[in-house]
Amino acid sequence: MFALDHEFFMNIALEEAEKAFALGEVPIGAVIALSSEVVSRAHNMKEQCHDATAHAEMVAIRQALEKLGHWRHLKEAALYVTVEPCPMCAGAIVQTRIKTLVYGTADIKAGAVHSLMNIVQDPRLNHQVEVIAGVLEQECSELMKKFFVSLRK
Amino acid sequence: MFALDHEFFMNIALEEAEKAFALGEVPIGAVIALSSEVVSRAHNMKEQCHDATAHAEMVAIRQALEKLGHWRHLKEAALYVTVEPCPMCAGAIVQTRIKTLVYGTADIKAGAVHSLMNIVQDPRLNHQVEVIAGVLEQECSELMKKFFVSLRK
Repeated sequence: MFALDHEFFMNIALEEAEKAFALGEVPIGAVIALSSEVVSRAHNMKEQCHDATAHAEMVAIRQALEKLGHWRHLKEAALYVTVEPCPMCAGAIVQTRIKTLVYGTADIKAGAVHSLMNIVQDPRLNHQVEVIAGVLEQECSELMKKFFVSLRK
Repeated sequence: MFALDHEFFMNIALEEAEKAFALGEVPIGAVIALSSEVVSRAHNMKEQCHDATAHAEMVAIRQALEKLGHWRHLKEAALYVTVEPCPMCAGAIVQTRIKTLVYGTADIKAGAVHSLMNIVQDPRLNHQVEVIAGVLEQECSELMKKFFVSLRK
């Protein structure tokens, strides 16, 4: 896929992140795309759902699996997420054998793709993921900064 | 808690693992205990649910969160699981701030507590978990071996 396609899907992930922001959630959004179509889109729902596992990526993965009917169908899919995945989500991406991970901005405190460790490309695990980082990085990063500034007020 | 308590809860996790075995699933079971009571118990449901994230630990965590109504309530809980958690489940244990992880047997191929990495005690993440390994190790390990022998037949 071309860079423009990546920006197209990341913009949808950003729309999802904006929804999380409006709900007082850490503004992270995710999209799963298969054959250039959106399969699922979701945002962080941790506070709303009282579920610390309801990260944008996990919700998008579960929705996609429900829709596609079988977990093996994600092996050609790409997951777009505005912020670098944490260890749980990186592990879920490996479990579901997603082909490509595209993320916006790094999470230097908990990122498990480049920042603290690299779970999605660990050669000892039974699946490795293609990674593209920095798509719409500034937009994704600014939304996070805006959220944490608003929290401090 | 005393060793006997740990064996009590691990035996329930083993009962769950036996249910998974009977369903043709990789036989892993999990229990979440709070104040010496069982809050949730679950087994691996990956094939049944067509969901590669439906590991025993994830299912038990979601059930416990639903039951307790708020994710912060797991901070005094112990999670018992027959096999060392993978990166996804180890990450979920950190996210939900579970106090204690007790597991039976190591997973040398994908374990993210001792075997390949240690996500639950990474000082860079915002929560670290107490770990007790090797409770009913032989029983947990033998059930896994029996399953993989039966698969090859």
